[in-house]
Amino acid sequence: MAIPKEELLKRFAGGQRAALSKIITLVENHATSFPDVLDELYPRTGKAYRIGITGPPGAGKSTLVSSLVQTIRTTEKTVGVIAVDPSSPFTGGALLGDRIRMQDIGTDPGVFVRSMATRGSLGGLAEAAGDVADVMDAFGKDVVITETVGVGQCELDIAEACYTTVVVIVPESGDAVQDMKAGLMEIADILVINKSDRDGAEQIARQTRAMFELRDERNGWDPPVILTVAFKGDGIPELYGHIEKHRQFLAESGLLEKHRQSNVEATIKAIVESDLHSKTWNEATLDRLEALVGDVMVGKVTPRQASGVILKMIEGP
Amino acid sequence: MAIPKEELLKRFAGGQRAALSKIITLVENHATSFPDVLDELYPRTGKAYRIGITGPPGAGKSTLVSSLVQTIRTTEKTVGVIAVDPSSPFTGGALLGDRIRMQDIGTDPGVFVRSMATRGSLGGLAEAAGDVADVMDAFGKDVVITETVGVGQCELDIAEACYTTVVVIVPESGDAVQDMKAGLMEIADILVINKSDRDGAEQIARQTRAMFELRDERNGWDPPVILTVAFKGDGIPELYGHIEKHRQFLAESGLLEKHRQSNVEATIKAIVESDLHSKTWNEATLDRLEALVGDVMVGKVTPRQASGVILKMIEGP
Repeated sequence: MAIPKEELLKRFAGGQRAALSKIITLVENHATSFPDVLDELYPRTGKAYRIGITGPPGAGKSTLVSSLVQTIRTTEKTVGVIAVDPSSPFTGGALLGDRIRMQDIGTDPGVFVRSMATRGSLGGLAEAAGDVADVMDAFGKDVVITETVGVGQCELDIAEACYTTVVVIVPESGDAVQDMKAGLMEIADILVINKSDRDGAEQIARQTRAMFELRDERNGWDPPVILTVAFKGDGIPELYGHIEKHRQFLAESGLLEKHRQSNVEATIKAIVESDLHSKTWNEATLDRLEALVGDVMVGKVTPRQASGVILKMIEGP
Repeated sequence: MAIPKEELLKRFAGGQRAALSKIITLVENHATSFPDVLDELYPRTGKAYRIGITGPPGAGKSTLVSSLVQTIRTTEKTVGVIAVDPSSPFTGGALLGDRIRMQDIGTDPGVFVRSMATRGSLGGLAEAAGDVADVMDAFGKDVVITETVGVGQCELDIAEACYTTVVVIVPESGDAVQDMKAGLMEIADILVINKSDRDGAEQIARQTRAMFELRDERNGWDPPVILTVAFKGDGIPELYGHIEKHRQFLAESGLLEKHRQSNVEATIKAIVESDLHSKTWNEATLDRLEALVGDVMVGKVTPRQASGVILKMIEGP
């Protein structure tokens, strides 16, 4: 039985986890029954600090998130975690041992973990992850951590929506570090060498520090390189210290405000485009599309001509 | 001085590399001077076999591509290479040694290499990569190879547009293999363990073979796992043999035709949406957007209300 909207919002405002969970599901599914849920919650947002954790598969990001959450919890702050990483134990991608470690934070009432599928979502995964972060923010979480994998455009978009982006690599990434210049390194506010009890950690730390020195300063912020062994908690308080330092830097330089502005702009644009998308692809246009695909396959029309037919349909008479 | 359109197309049809290069640039930049270039070329497309090579940074994908191209060239087939991997030596991301190796194929007139930036492009990188593949196809390349990195949505989109997707990992990826289930493994038609002269190659080959056996067959195709040392060329002829086998499988099962159909559909959709995008964001709407961002920041309106204003502007009176 569906809970009435007012009752759901009341429970959400009252801090009920089940209501948070339900509203995230509504948002993820672009629920037509309650399309304005994000709008209702919007006035409550803007308080959570948003952290992005990203890096290649196998870097131990989830263990690091888990450990970081425990460190943040010692300050009484509440935390929301969004895992959009197919390799994350949160999303069910990893080994049993990882899954057990995750339980450390899974039972803490001050922590809320949500996994997101990596494919499909109509409005795009980056947008959906931003929406879920907004909901956690509105719920009152002090910190929202989003964990992603890889260096794809979607991951970059998610990282851009976060205030502090932490890139996690391992000593074995040696071969890859030079390679990643154009990708991961570019978005790192803080670089973590995890599993740093393995061979080569110091060497890769030196290499990456040198790389950061060579490049232009990013608005006056010099990304620190931190060694961690997330499994044991080594280096995690230091990592959190640097996150707090970066937060202070953003606030004092006015960059945090700019960041929020560009997030708002991206949100408005995304709603406009998602709305146009729904209006464009209805039963009639999709039927016509199917027929046009056949026409293109036999060489009757080109794809551009076919798209012209669809565009004319949308614009109407 | 700009070359007239007819002259450019004539040179392109005559097999001039400079014309190919010029037309790719026009396509990449969505050149307004020549918007219908893809349409003009479209009747010439459909002959090239499209191969996607993907995997984590540092897996040696570019060396593998280089070596694979040399193997393909022994059959007299011509090859186009598109590098959308920020870690690729083709795109300038890697070490000097790699760059030198790339020259092996760079001087062969039967090979054309094009690098693409990984960010920005208006219509989306996956779409742009598909367009460039179309141009190479129209130019007469028998095979077009697209090299990408990572497991992001964009990479998945690019892989989906290819007929055969080769996923490349290294023995050191051991930790990551389980993790990658939901990502790279899912799209692999062929799995390559590169740098297989290193420790652990046989073990990871066994593990991945076991993983493939556990999962459902993909329309009757069982992805082979191949050991290579791309730098020495070891295993590359075998890889090419499996690509050819996969091609034959797709052709005989009718899946190649289905694949082409869904590519055509995606192309038409992308043109429609890119066109709507350009119509939506003009000077007037962008000005209004900027003002609305300010309104949202001070809490006067919500993002959804702001987007409503833009949508009304677009729809007109």
